[in-house]
Amino acid sequence: MNIHDKRIAKPSYVTTGPIGKSRKLYSSPVGRPDIRVPYREISLEAGSAEAPLRIYDQSGPYSCAQFQPNLESGLPPTRTWLAKREGIETYQGRAIKPEDNGFVEGEKLVQPCPAHRPLYRAAGSAPVTQLEFARAGIITEEMIFVAHRENLCREKAFEQAQERLADGESFGADIPEFVTPEFVRHEIAIGRAIIPANINHPELEPVIIGRNFLVKVNANIGNSAVTSSVAEEVEKMVWSARWGADTVMDLSTGRNIHNIRDWIIRNASVPIGTVPIYQALEKVGGDALKLDWEVFKDTLIEQAEQGVDYFTIHAGVRLAYVPLTANRVTGIVSRGGSIMARWCLSKHKESFLYERFDEICEIMRRYDVSFSLGDGLRPGSNADANDAAQFAELETLGELTKIAWDKGCQVMIEGPGHVPMHKIKANMDKQLKVCGEAPFYTLGPLVTDIAPGYDHITSGIGAAMIGWFGTAMLCYVTPKEHLGLPDRDDVKTGVITYRIAAHAADLAKGHPGARERDDAMSRARFDFRWNDQFDIGLDPDTARKYHDETMPKEAHKVAHFCSMCGPKFCSMQITRDLRQEAALISEREKGMADKSEEFIAKGADIYIRETTT
Amino acid sequence: MNIHDKRIAKPSYVTTGPIGKSRKLYSSPVGRPDIRVPYREISLEAGSAEAPLRIYDQSGPYSCAQFQPNLESGLPPTRTWLAKREGIETYQGRAIKPEDNGFVEGEKLVQPCPAHRPLYRAAGSAPVTQLEFARAGIITEEMIFVAHRENLCREKAFEQAQERLADGESFGADIPEFVTPEFVRHEIAIGRAIIPANINHPELEPVIIGRNFLVKVNANIGNSAVTSSVAEEVEKMVWSARWGADTVMDLSTGRNIHNIRDWIIRNASVPIGTVPIYQALEKVGGDALKLDWEVFKDTLIEQAEQGVDYFTIHAGVRLAYVPLTANRVTGIVSRGGSIMARWCLSKHKESFLYERFDEICEIMRRYDVSFSLGDGLRPGSNADANDAAQFAELETLGELTKIAWDKGCQVMIEGPGHVPMHKIKANMDKQLKVCGEAPFYTLGPLVTDIAPGYDHITSGIGAAMIGWFGTAMLCYVTPKEHLGLPDRDDVKTGVITYRIAAHAADLAKGHPGARERDDAMSRARFDFRWNDQFDIGLDPDTARKYHDETMPKEAHKVAHFCSMCGPKFCSMQITRDLRQEAALISEREKGMADKSEEFIAKGADIYIRETTT
Repeated sequence: MNIHDKRIAKPSYVTTGPIGKSRKLYSSPVGRPDIRVPYREISLEAGSAEAPLRIYDQSGPYSCAQFQPNLESGLPPTRTWLAKREGIETYQGRAIKPEDNGFVEGEKLVQPCPAHRPLYRAAGSAPVTQLEFARAGIITEEMIFVAHRENLCREKAFEQAQERLADGESFGADIPEFVTPEFVRHEIAIGRAIIPANINHPELEPVIIGRNFLVKVNANIGNSAVTSSVAEEVEKMVWSARWGADTVMDLSTGRNIHNIRDWIIRNASVPIGTVPIYQALEKVGGDALKLDWEVFKDTLIEQAEQGVDYFTIHAGVRLAYVPLTANRVTGIVSRGGSIMARWCLSKHKESFLYERFDEICEIMRRYDVSFSLGDGLRPGSNADANDAAQFAELETLGELTKIAWDKGCQVMIEGPGHVPMHKIKANMDKQLKVCGEAPFYTLGPLVTDIAPGYDHITSGIGAAMIGWFGTAMLCYVTPKEHLGLPDRDDVKTGVITYRIAAHAADLAKGHPGARERDDAMSRARFDFRWNDQFDIGLDPDTARKYHDETMPKEAHKVAHFCSMCGPKFCSMQITRDLRQEAALISEREKGMADKSEEFIAKGADIYIRETTT
Repeated sequence: MNIHDKRIAKPSYVTTGPIGKSRKLYSSPVGRPDIRVPYREISLEAGSAEAPLRIYDQSGPYSCAQFQPNLESGLPPTRTWLAKREGIETYQGRAIKPEDNGFVEGEKLVQPCPAHRPLYRAAGSAPVTQLEFARAGIITEEMIFVAHRENLCREKAFEQAQERLADGESFGADIPEFVTPEFVRHEIAIGRAIIPANINHPELEPVIIGRNFLVKVNANIGNSAVTSSVAEEVEKMVWSARWGADTVMDLSTGRNIHNIRDWIIRNASVPIGTVPIYQALEKVGGDALKLDWEVFKDTLIEQAEQGVDYFTIHAGVRLAYVPLTANRVTGIVSRGGSIMARWCLSKHKESFLYERFDEICEIMRRYDVSFSLGDGLRPGSNADANDAAQFAELETLGELTKIAWDKGCQVMIEGPGHVPMHKIKANMDKQLKVCGEAPFYTLGPLVTDIAPGYDHITSGIGAAMIGWFGTAMLCYVTPKEHLGLPDRDDVKTGVITYRIAAHAADLAKGHPGARERDDAMSRARFDFRWNDQFDIGLDPDTARKYHDETMPKEAHKVAHFCSMCGPKFCSMQITRDLRQEAALISEREKGMADKSEEFIAKGADIYIRETTT
């Protein structure tokens, strides 16, 4: 089947099956069999004395060997506890309107996803958001879930945790040795972490975003008016999660926007984010000046009912800040930011997002949709980094954070953009200060502008650094950035690059357990366990393919060299020989009195110990 | 012709022609028409009011539209002044021996390159190395060349240089606004920079390596016993330089090693580095224990006569340090380091490289071969980073640096390796301290071990950071690292990734002129000059290809959007509309007294100024 056929009205293909040699497993906290926390286990070569390696897994049920997806039914619910949750009610939702799908009709209309779910909203003033529960001292199932999930990869590290933490530089982050549900509750209560989890997204496997947890990665998908189809977008969502995206933003802007989103959410185990102003703009025919509160509000409710977990809201783009962008080299480069700037300046009015912020909070609270306060004035070039417009907006985002918190909403803050290395830390420091430590969620940043086609790399550099400094989630950039809509390969490259950045940040912060995977890889390298090297890596398929280009035979998988250096020049093999030789020398020279000999022998003894274990 | 045919006994194909829409040009300092300094000029769209953009160029004459390579004759000499230089003499060189090419015979023997050059060596104690000249207060042609070369991209920035420097964070680097030949001389005299330029490499376009100059990039090429041919290696050298490698190391280890190197050097406009111990080991049949000073010395002379510009010498791997690696997760991962460690430990003798260091200096001085003091005990995993073995060796490299300086030799120091982000700066700081600010030349470092297939990225992150902190040259890593020998595509990806890292470092250091290219790109983006965006970038071919995947037509090259966002959601277009609208509003509202209106109008006036230029 050709998944690139633009006329396919409903998706019918997604990637399934195990990743490399790993098995998908679930683990439940004691006494809570209903809370099934996913992870993957990589079994290593028999006889290597290596325990299977557990890793955090974002891929959903799709990576189970037995799983057969049925996209029309959607995923089986993970959050079964929602049905029993107090303080929420079912109701008859908003009817789908023709403008929700851009007035598209007939065979061009993507079919709605037939999966049916009960529709929930807050019933009154009882806690409904994770923030409200946390403040009330209540530990939710979502909190238990994420605590268990974050711990899965650090159990073995527990005893060395103190040492590991001391080894890192966390810039004031307060990473615990072990994550308890109470720790999660506390972090959420003070606004330092969020669990984006709309009560209408039961398929979700909850994720925590905050700088005292593992650094997360977001992947953007979405069609544009120029290209791509519903089939491609659903597959891109599954595909992104497969390679390690913790959340996925659907940035679709073309027609069929409502129905595509429905297919995505019903089949998504990762939190889904959107930018509602995009759809609102479609509803008014693309004319920013026709936007108003009513169409925006209606869109918020529409998407909240579908189960979107977080909304980017560009409420910080205020009228007075627009002129601050006048001397910029690249003006305003956020789509939402430019739309709102145009609206404000043309009408000489304050942004309705800013003025109606209270009402936005009330709607979002009702479904526990988290805020991602958009940085509409982020710099689009190194020349514009850290300028007055950017920082004025950030101050406003800090002000809005406090309002949202007062209204019971969870909040994260979006950050730049294009920033040279020496200006990155100032962004993090200012964000922590003015936004009360609400989680930072940054795009890149790109540390230079001169490499179109390689902006996953220009931005991966900045992402690793800002992740280290304290950013809680990194929004990926693909190789197609600035050039066109990413395809499936670009999405994978973007996700893997950002997993590298996030993991490098975890290591540098001294995250307990983060180095387990690196160490397992290094031992596999030293032991020439080639298959293990491939499987422990972020992308077993590519690693295997690259190796096999020059040494394809099965026998090569145990060779004590690769084609890079060849057999005579393999330093690892020479070191192994050396350790064995040292052992012999040590035997021969036992009893020698000479001081330097003793020193060598001491080293050699250590070699013996190493090689016999 | 199939360039991958392993049986081709001589190279016959290299890539030529302009890069993107750029022209290769040469510029001479006033009064020195014999010194022809290369650069490239990217002509931008007619009518854009943009001056052509000058960029530093490493690609040699191969990127001239008219250039026809004749590999058998080698490149025409750049350093014509060598023939007139005092203090050097011609002589009859060492005869080629069968072991130089691994005793290979008949049709398996790669033909020697027939290009003939006079053979030079120092005639006595008069200055012959750049360091000796610098100390004697003499400015060489090479110093004039690099001064002019470094200035080419910063002339326009001259007036803003103070501001630009103030904008960066250089961690104590002392980057001048303008590079004079005297500044170059001084930096070389105090050992803070080197110009690797063997007097037997007249084809060389000199390059300066030091932390007060542009950050440089090295690419490794070389066959292994398992794969690749001479044709591929010569092309890889030309190809690396084409995409921005400032120097190329030939790490070949198989047979035909002498003759392959000859073809490479005679056709190389970039400095060529080698690791002589590799060839010495080949000469003794691959048995490290058969290595001795005589075979090593003979190899040094052989390669120095060929024109190799710098040698990696692992003289810091001392007997006493080998036991320090015993508890490492990945032991010794430098090929040269593991060979020497094995030699030392098996024989219970101090390294002959360490003991004969004076004599090595005397040989290298005679040809002005620069030292690249190898880090044979660099960590091969994050677990082993910054350990006792690594830092013990670094201390010894500092000691050896002073000896080499006393003997008149230029020196740079090799650095790691695998290092998590929070341990990178300590490497730079320690190197500066113990090695007297001799230029640092680092491999990566890789900030995590978990991504085989993507180690250009794991290391590109570390490279950008350590370049910012003060590393003078970054040794690239390709996607095939740890998996196999890189092919042509891998080499390109590695070089481009490292050009990104080096440029990001220059930007962060506040290098005057570095941002010119970024700003030109940003203006091209804002103006929707698509062709200019491709051509200003590091890789015009890939950028154009990615763009054209979704919008291939010529008409799309002036479209005010791309397929990423489509026409309605292009923030740049919206900002442009907004600036025009603002201009109209400003007209309409002239004379309004209201304070806030005035504020808006002020911004709008700025828009008018912007849009009419």
